[in-house]
Amino acid sequence: MKREGVLYIISAPSGAGKTTLCKEIIDIFPHLRHSVSYTTRQPRAGEVHGKDYYFISMDDFRSMVDKGEFAEWAEVHGNCYGTSIRTLEECRITGIDLILDIDIQGARQLKERYEGGVYIFILPPSYEELRRRLNGRSSDSDDVISRRIDAAAGEIRESRWYDYIIVNDQFSRAVEELKSVVVAERCRTFRVLEAVTERFDMG
Amino acid sequence: MKREGVLYIISAPSGAGKTTLCKEIIDIFPHLRHSVSYTTRQPRAGEVHGKDYYFISMDDFRSMVDKGEFAEWAEVHGNCYGTSIRTLEECRITGIDLILDIDIQGARQLKERYEGGVYIFILPPSYEELRRRLNGRSSDSDDVISRRIDAAAGEIRESRWYDYIIVNDQFSRAVEELKSVVVAERCRTFRVLEAVTERFDMG
Repeated sequence: MKREGVLYIISAPSGAGKTTLCKEIIDIFPHLRHSVSYTTRQPRAGEVHGKDYYFISMDDFRSMVDKGEFAEWAEVHGNCYGTSIRTLEECRITGIDLILDIDIQGARQLKERYEGGVYIFILPPSYEELRRRLNGRSSDSDDVISRRIDAAAGEIRESRWYDYIIVNDQFSRAVEELKSVVVAERCRTFRVLEAVTERFDMG
Repeated sequence: MKREGVLYIISAPSGAGKTTLCKEIIDIFPHLRHSVSYTTRQPRAGEVHGKDYYFISMDDFRSMVDKGEFAEWAEVHGNCYGTSIRTLEECRITGIDLILDIDIQGARQLKERYEGGVYIFILPPSYEELRRRLNGRSSDSDDVISRRIDAAAGEIRESRWYDYIIVNDQFSRAVEELKSVVVAERCRTFRVLEAVTERFDMG
């Protein structure tokens, strides 16, 4: 049935497995896209402008902020990240669902401004497992890891205002749960009622 | 994670395919049971007391109503059907999820009395398809079918206050959607927050 696109807003502490989960889910659903954010950080190896992010200068980012073009934006570890209002409008009009892989500050701004978004928090199984996973990433120093664990405790407390909590204990189960949230939310009455009313002449 | 059982309340107009969908879903999930209702109607061939229904006399049914033992009850085509409060309490305490396959009157009573239930409405693809399906049931006369189609129009209007609407167009898709609602609802923050708080020492 025809309906507006759904915004799935996904946050997690670093090391919870959010990026991998999001990729998996986008591969499964043809009508689900990764929302491309703007960022001032440098591209990492393999990242493509316009696909992973729109990589822009701090001046351009500030100018977009000043013109009110962002639905949400946040500074994380000294870099700015933002989602443009235009991206969300396109989703609404075209009926294409979007995954917004954004941090808690950004999610909170969206929650205040937009109705109908679906807020999902991904949790690691435990602090111990989180430390193990972060240690496994050769890229991070012990200092960075300790800072991330401390940050995680604060972030996890924010999970209480999300709509769904998914514990990434077994990856396949977490995928199944995230997939289920995507499908179930498309069946929410307030999203399909207009189409149903038309089809069954309930006016 | 430990949590209370979830009540999935499913209604549909006759011929939407609700019974088959419910059976399919119960086969899939080990922790999901069909709630056994009380009824005053006669058992049909193959129906088992205590499994399909508790078949009781009108006197016994009235006595249970008088003692306030029903969470919901309704009269449908001259027979009474009801769900006991005890059944719902057991679900809450044991963490076993229940499918309540009940009519709209009963669902409305539950909605007024219980928080946290999940209300799902199953729709046929169209009135034409509904008529075709009801015609295919050799058991029903033309009169009964016409009455059911008329009733369906009124029932479908009630779908607006349910949480989810599933259109049973393609059976496999409807199963997938119902399955997704079951899994997604188990991840709702308000159902898992207590367990998460304990695990991550968020107190």
